[in-house]
Amino acid sequence: MPPQRAFVGIDLGGTNMQIGVVDADMKVLGEAKKKTKPEEGVEGVLARIAEGVNEACAAAGVTTIAALGIGAPGVIDPEKGVVVEAVNLRWNDVPLAELLSKRLKTKVAVDNDVNVAVWGENKLGAGKNSNNLLGVWIGTGIGGGLVLNGRLHYGHWFSAGEIGHTVLFPFLPLGERTLENNASRTSVTERIVRLIRSNHKSKLTSELGDDPLKWTNEVKSKVIAKHYRGGEREDKLVVEVVDHVAEMVGVSVANAVTLLSLERIILGGGLTEATGKPFVDRVAEAARRVVFPRLAQGVDIVASRLEDRAGVIGAAMLAMDRK
Amino acid sequence: MPPQRAFVGIDLGGTNMQIGVVDADMKVLGEAKKKTKPEEGVEGVLARIAEGVNEACAAAGVTTIAALGIGAPGVIDPEKGVVVEAVNLRWNDVPLAELLSKRLKTKVAVDNDVNVAVWGENKLGAGKNSNNLLGVWIGTGIGGGLVLNGRLHYGHWFSAGEIGHTVLFPFLPLGERTLENNASRTSVTERIVRLIRSNHKSKLTSELGDDPLKWTNEVKSKVIAKHYRGGEREDKLVVEVVDHVAEMVGVSVANAVTLLSLERIILGGGLTEATGKPFVDRVAEAARRVVFPRLAQGVDIVASRLEDRAGVIGAAMLAMDRK
Repeated sequence: MPPQRAFVGIDLGGTNMQIGVVDADMKVLGEAKKKTKPEEGVEGVLARIAEGVNEACAAAGVTTIAALGIGAPGVIDPEKGVVVEAVNLRWNDVPLAELLSKRLKTKVAVDNDVNVAVWGENKLGAGKNSNNLLGVWIGTGIGGGLVLNGRLHYGHWFSAGEIGHTVLFPFLPLGERTLENNASRTSVTERIVRLIRSNHKSKLTSELGDDPLKWTNEVKSKVIAKHYRGGEREDKLVVEVVDHVAEMVGVSVANAVTLLSLERIILGGGLTEATGKPFVDRVAEAARRVVFPRLAQGVDIVASRLEDRAGVIGAAMLAMDRK
Repeated sequence: MPPQRAFVGIDLGGTNMQIGVVDADMKVLGEAKKKTKPEEGVEGVLARIAEGVNEACAAAGVTTIAALGIGAPGVIDPEKGVVVEAVNLRWNDVPLAELLSKRLKTKVAVDNDVNVAVWGENKLGAGKNSNNLLGVWIGTGIGGGLVLNGRLHYGHWFSAGEIGHTVLFPFLPLGERTLENNASRTSVTERIVRLIRSNHKSKLTSELGDDPLKWTNEVKSKVIAKHYRGGEREDKLVVEVVDHVAEMVGVSVANAVTLLSLERIILGGGLTEATGKPFVDRVAEAARRVVFPRLAQGVDIVASRLEDRAGVIGAAMLAMDRK
């Protein structure tokens, strides 16, 4: 049997990184997870990436890598492989492809983390057979990735797809105007905590610790899911807050569908995974209400299928494409 | 001297059509104008197009056409040359390229009217040297055309660029939600007339006829321009209404710039031509305030340069491209 060609895909987040070794059919052969620790600087992060790649290769029983792909959070120049700006990593103009390529002696492709996940979905997940789609990833922030005419679209400044930064409330002050400001998991948590602090009733209250200052750390995606529609302890207040977010996401994706004549919207990220079908259905309902009427019936609005592996698989696919 | 290659460009509107014969450098050699009269059906419109083409060719001293391009208002399938839906013409699934080609014995390219104008601007006007831009045409309605990676972008349903149908006020009723509902010339007229009827002071009042029911027909672009900033009889009420429209256009184009990472916005159409630089400057100011901050300084927001010839020239260019 000839030696198998192995590709590495990396999903680099501000807190954790996920590394996978896959074969040419994108079957996962081995995996590893590491802390990112951006506070230790670029060299520290690179060292942990290298460790993680070694661990994942060992787990996969692979000794040679054909190519490596990496999705990083921020604005990326994919041609040069440069991280132009990544707020969570505190990086500016880091030539990630060059640095990693030198260290790991393999070809490296770099792209935005959500672009990479959307590319994975487009080829192997919820985006199959669609050439015009937008992926919206709702987690601590809101990112997006655009596939137009069957290819990832970057735009003039490499920031295309950033639906989280479009504004819903132009006359609110800075920090409260955008979709991300109003519909990220972070904003859901803040709203729930604010309502509970101001004495609104919720089943969640009895589950929170004694220190109200720590509540925002306690209301994570899993806790939200438990109290959302269909959850173990469905709760009116949590349903109210999350349904409102679904409506705002619906309006924003509707405008993207109208402007770009999109065939499909894929929703992913931590909040979407946690809240599942009831959330996606509500986004779709809100979107259909306000989208350009002639597209309302045709457009698909669906959940990610690769879920938390979309990034790793998409990054590995990117590596294979660019090879 | 060898015979010159001549191209015909047609800007087909719901009320009028404009026809131009140009050479390969897009120099206009002859022109004609006709009423569209959509109420007389497809055959009637085709007959008037043919007459207009003959008149323009006679004016240009041209006997043979190399190719013809036509921009029509509505959703167009540019590959098949079919007008899928054109509300103003009352057309559905009209194979315009085929019908015109048979009648005029020449190759015919069809596209959306604003796409065609934006294509003209991209090649010869305010969009030169830009590969990622959106044109927004503000007239009786609001249309748009997108150039991405240097090519007109159509999307899955051929309706890409329709920024007029994106919503600004999702919780207002149908007919009051979209940019077009709130910022077309028609909506400016309705607002001004409503304010004057409800006794708001305006210099315009003294210029209106005796029948208040006819006022909406009287407040056209030229009248608005006369009373807007820098106009002959600048008027507080008109300035208020038009400035508000500029802000709404600014917010909408800002979201398009953020989502698509656009380099340039071109503003055209009757209302923009009438109100000029003060209007464009206000749109730009509003857009810069709410666009993804890292793009605020880079993006250009400019007025159309070809103005009412953009459609004819763009259509002729399209004919030449497709030939």
